[in-house]
Amino acid sequence: MVIILDNSASEQQVEDVVKHLEDYGFQVHKSVGVERTILGAIGVQPDFDVRKVKILNGVSDVYRVTVPFKLASRSFKEDNTVVKIKDVEIGKDKITLMAGPCSIESEEQIFKLAEVVSKSGSQILRGGAFKPRSSPYSFQGLGEEGLKYIRQAADEFNLLVITEVMEIKYIDLIYKYTDIFQIGARNMQNFPLLKELGKTDKPIMLKRGLSAQIEEWLMSAEYILSEGNKDVLLCERGIRTFEKYTRNTFDLSAVPVVHKKSHLPVIADPSHATGLRDQVPPMARAAVAAGADGLMIEIHHDPEHAFSDGPQALLPNDYINLVQELKMIAKAIGRDI
Amino acid sequence: MVIILDNSASEQQVEDVVKHLEDYGFQVHKSVGVERTILGAIGVQPDFDVRKVKILNGVSDVYRVTVPFKLASRSFKEDNTVVKIKDVEIGKDKITLMAGPCSIESEEQIFKLAEVVSKSGSQILRGGAFKPRSSPYSFQGLGEEGLKYIRQAADEFNLLVITEVMEIKYIDLIYKYTDIFQIGARNMQNFPLLKELGKTDKPIMLKRGLSAQIEEWLMSAEYILSEGNKDVLLCERGIRTFEKYTRNTFDLSAVPVVHKKSHLPVIADPSHATGLRDQVPPMARAAVAAGADGLMIEIHHDPEHAFSDGPQALLPNDYINLVQELKMIAKAIGRDI
Amino acid sequence: MVIILDNSASEQQVEDVVKHLEDYGFQVHKSVGVERTILGAIGVQPDFDVRKVKILNGVSDVYRVTVPFKLASRSFKEDNTVVKIKDVEIGKDKITLMAGPCSIESEEQIFKLAEVVSKSGSQILRGGAFKPRSSPYSFQGLGEEGLKYIRQAADEFNLLVITEVMEIKYIDLIYKYTDIFQIGARNMQNFPLLKELGKTDKPIMLKRGLSAQIEEWLMSAEYILSEGNKDVLLCERGIRTFEKYTRNTFDLSAVPVVHKKSHLPVIADPSHATGLRDQVPPMARAAVAAGADGLMIEIHHDPEHAFSDGPQALLPNDYINLVQELKMIAKAIGRDI
Amino acid sequence: MVIILDNSASEQQVEDVVKHLEDYGFQVHKSVGVERTILGAIGVQPDFDVRKVKILNGVSDVYRVTVPFKLASRSFKEDNTVVKIKDVEIGKDKITLMAGPCSIESEEQIFKLAEVVSKSGSQILRGGAFKPRSSPYSFQGLGEEGLKYIRQAADEFNLLVITEVMEIKYIDLIYKYTDIFQIGARNMQNFPLLKELGKTDKPIMLKRGLSAQIEEWLMSAEYILSEGNKDVLLCERGIRTFEKYTRNTFDLSAVPVVHKKSHLPVIADPSHATGLRDQVPPMARAAVAAGADGLMIEIHHDPEHAFSDGPQALLPNDYINLVQELKMIAKAIGRDI
Repeated sequence: MVIILDNSASEQQVEDVVKHLEDYGFQVHKSVGVERTILGAIGVQPDFDVRKVKILNGVSDVYRVTVPFKLASRSFKEDNTVVKIKDVEIGKDKITLMAGPCSIESEEQIFKLAEVVSKSGSQILRGGAFKPRSSPYSFQGLGEEGLKYIRQAADEFNLLVITEVMEIKYIDLIYKYTDIFQIGARNMQNFPLLKELGKTDKPIMLKRGLSAQIEEWLMSAEYILSEGNKDVLLCERGIRTFEKYTRNTFDLSAVPVVHKKSHLPVIADPSHATGLRDQVPPMARAAVAAGADGLMIEIHHDPEHAFSDGPQALLPNDYINLVQELKMIAKAIGRDI
Repeated sequence: MVIILDNSASEQQVEDVVKHLEDYGFQVHKSVGVERTILGAIGVQPDFDVRKVKILNGVSDVYRVTVPFKLASRSFKEDNTVVKIKDVEIGKDKITLMAGPCSIESEEQIFKLAEVVSKSGSQILRGGAFKPRSSPYSFQGLGEEGLKYIRQAADEFNLLVITEVMEIKYIDLIYKYTDIFQIGARNMQNFPLLKELGKTDKPIMLKRGLSAQIEEWLMSAEYILSEGNKDVLLCERGIRTFEKYTRNTFDLSAVPVVHKKSHLPVIADPSHATGLRDQVPPMARAAVAAGADGLMIEIHHDPEHAFSDGPQALLPNDYINLVQELKMIAKAIGRDI
Repeated sequence: MVIILDNSASEQQVEDVVKHLEDYGFQVHKSVGVERTILGAIGVQPDFDVRKVKILNGVSDVYRVTVPFKLASRSFKEDNTVVKIKDVEIGKDKITLMAGPCSIESEEQIFKLAEVVSKSGSQILRGGAFKPRSSPYSFQGLGEEGLKYIRQAADEFNLLVITEVMEIKYIDLIYKYTDIFQIGARNMQNFPLLKELGKTDKPIMLKRGLSAQIEEWLMSAEYILSEGNKDVLLCERGIRTFEKYTRNTFDLSAVPVVHKKSHLPVIADPSHATGLRDQVPPMARAAVAAGADGLMIEIHHDPEHAFSDGPQALLPNDYINLVQELKMIAKAIGRDI
Repeated sequence: MVIILDNSASEQQVEDVVKHLEDYGFQVHKSVGVERTILGAIGVQPDFDVRKVKILNGVSDVYRVTVPFKLASRSFKEDNTVVKIKDVEIGKDKITLMAGPCSIESEEQIFKLAEVVSKSGSQILRGGAFKPRSSPYSFQGLGEEGLKYIRQAADEFNLLVITEVMEIKYIDLIYKYTDIFQIGARNMQNFPLLKELGKTDKPIMLKRGLSAQIEEWLMSAEYILSEGNKDVLLCERGIRTFEKYTRNTFDLSAVPVVHKKSHLPVIADPSHATGLRDQVPPMARAAVAAGADGLMIEIHHDPEHAFSDGPQALLPNDYINLVQELKMIAKAIGRDI
């Protein structure tokens, strides 16, 4: 932590600030310049609230020196984390594709789409059985019935399953059916849920909150990592801004930024980020070009009658064609799909 | 719902859109103008996803006509909701004051502050026993021990208790000690939690999410109301913007907007909105002037050693003086504290 | 400037960073801690681009120590600036009221409204003769004809005039008619315009840009001050956020923040901030309570036929009544209107 | 325009609204449903302020039906605009590359960089001679001297020139040296400047404002087009959000959105969008993949001593290598560089 004192701070005030810092457990270095004095406070306290110092008399500004996350940071672990599930490895040169419907609607629907996912050469089948809906009057998911269908469909077509968990009480149930737990954007800071999932031994995909800074997102990953689960995937799915022609603003710069700050793989979700079908292909291409380690894309064979988010779902053939394009872009940047 | 067709939409396309709308259960009115055709789709489907129509061929734009919330709306219930707890009525002319520490830290601390709250003429004692912290390494609250202290302190000084609930599994426990359940900003869209609290018979204060639109906030209130609990308070506590000199941007316009759209009382929390002690008094004054039905303010007798959020806590005497100023402003606008 | 080095920075890298800093003209203090080394770079270079250091090998983070504005800062000038025009003093205990139509539409209109402004006890008449409109097809203002009308109307009722200047070429013309130049939000970073106005001897009211941080706003004030014009008023008029029920988000916390960082008076404009008539009175009251030094409010005797922004204009009687309420709030906080 | 009336609107109120609409020049269609009445108001008034209707008694909501821009819209002109300058065509399959320093610093510097631009196979040389700087104390550009250097350098290497114009008074001067006028983000709504440039016969590149919605950006293009200049390029360069690890948030979705709504070419500027060198290559790749018609990238042979924005400039060799990668991505999506 670095403390900048006021030009006008008295010697007494400086001493008082130093004393406070020492009481808080820091080792203090003083640097006296022509115009003002700067203090360096050394000591590992990642969660120290810098405002405690900011309000002392004579203090002009305070800067935190260390990032508040540790296990999630690139400086803690230099090598990329590779999440390995059966024969799928996420975070290596080969880009992982996850696809499927927003909601699991019926046995027939998920089998039909699993076939598409398999045919396209993708590895992971997505589908929601418990849905977070902003309206209490909307379809809330098929529950365990849906979980059974998606597991069977995935097994039939040799795919992995990813599905969302919204509540601690369903962790055990979902555990029986899924390969990867998904944490939705609205639950990014549901800390009790993060902690419980951190105690499981299955990978977690953590979606970025709608207005979460990258730092907070990594802090939420830290909650999971600190409970012992090392297999965390981060998923960028759009942030909220003032722009109204898109559902959200797809923050693709998050991909290189996270790769610099952290060792965890980054998945990109162009379906939720844009919210409209015709924007999904260009943004999927952009995500691969930006360096994403995987994509999650929603598809549906009959989007007009989808129970949720139909308008952002690609049709099966459009998805299969898109994957061909993505392969070429992956190749152009020295990766593979 | 109103559907604007493209200038160039063919008659066949128009008929196709009409058919889709009828299949979705709407009654359709067609209005043919010189330049373009407009369709009105009538029928109560508050959760209908308008993008289903937006993607049809020939459609230019689609507008939802009804607000997606119902029980929370002013048109459903014209009179202000008054939440009555013992002899405190929230939502009438008299403005309600809630104050206390961010975290309950010890029996002594909460009794000391309860005395201040009582002396100032405030009605409700706040204090967290389970804390949502962005870092897993931060103080997480005293748990049930804290709940016992705050209940005893409130009873001693004839105050009501408000405290946060973060998880479904603690609802029953907290129910035994609190008068009002608080839902934190990060849980505004934790729908399972909202539903469970909607089944209880104690009032709920719902904080606005960091990037929640007012409409989504009211939709979350709808989740609680639709389970049968009518006693919902809304709390504005700052939204996230690009400005960096304040912790959040206090959106005080939310007060008159909510009063227009809804019948529910609005509480304002200048402590979390600004994050720094010296900005709390001016923004508390502004909140009263803007028409808030209540304020929630953090206080601490020794902020430098507070376990959390000390820098935004007012000192006891500063709080007591502030209440005097607020009384005068309340009077100036024909209300009372 | 404070430079935090990487844990893993080599001695050679540290020396290289020190050399760069010295080449850039800084005096360097080195502070070696257990975990990492911190450098303090001393020297007054308010516009130094810290990214120049951020990209050096071995550097983890860089913090600017001094604010980038000087003449606008409270540390440069401790006493509040009071802008004196004839017998009106802006920035003292008495709160200044500015009111009038969005656009000057006719001689009759501005005289009618000037009478209202005078009757209400306000001091300054506003009205636009050159209008910045987002559409090229909208009414662009009466030009010099409008300036004549507003000057005559103001003189008739013993008021001062404030009007917007959008282009350098009109400064001389507008100078002949106005008492205060207004710079609109869209021109907050029109630096050539700021510089030219800084050379005039009439006060300038600088509106905050739609997405301007407070720091940038003060930097724009610096542009004016550095040319010699000391009479700058700052005007908060709402910032752009994701909320859609209000035109903009009125950032009232800017009032106490600016008062802390700068000596310049702050005016609040609830008309543009909210955009709808029924929200103007509560937010005007809040602005006074938050400590604004003045208010700017739009009024119109026939808003339905106003040439611009009619929906946010108050009716004459509503304005006169509002001023009475504001007087009581001013009194409650020890000020006067 | 579509007007939704309140459930409770009286017949008298409905008639009154209809009368107002007719007075404003609209032709009105009434559609009476079970729950509420909807009015369709037909008539071309692109700049009509819908709030005029929103404030009438009995009105619940009002929606604008037509986009407010016309000449810039895809429905006005279906075919892509191709801007042709000498043998360069912008907006066709071949993607255009613009590169050069932020500021022109000397004859030597711009010649050195022009050589790099040429060698890389790019077509256009960028460089600022008049710089908009947020601080009045920063380097403001070489002025006409710089214009001479960039023209000579471009001619020497058979490149086109793009340079920024900040003030109307310099249009004639810059006209003599440049091939394309650039309008900076801060001037996107400097309407007098837009109009004057609309009267010239050289292409204009209009950068998106820091907090501009895509609709407003297209409205600003409309200002230029409506004066007769048809050669407008739009440039996405990042918008302002709450994220702090990047300078701005690069809104790449703007590329497909603009292509849908408008016929004008879209250029992407990853240098300003991210602000740090190591993020430029991934985001440049993403921009090509997303369908941008051109890129603008800052380069410098000695970024540490650049007069402005050095930290975001690529080194010559890094740029040349990047162009090779971009060529492969362009090929993968069926385009060319």
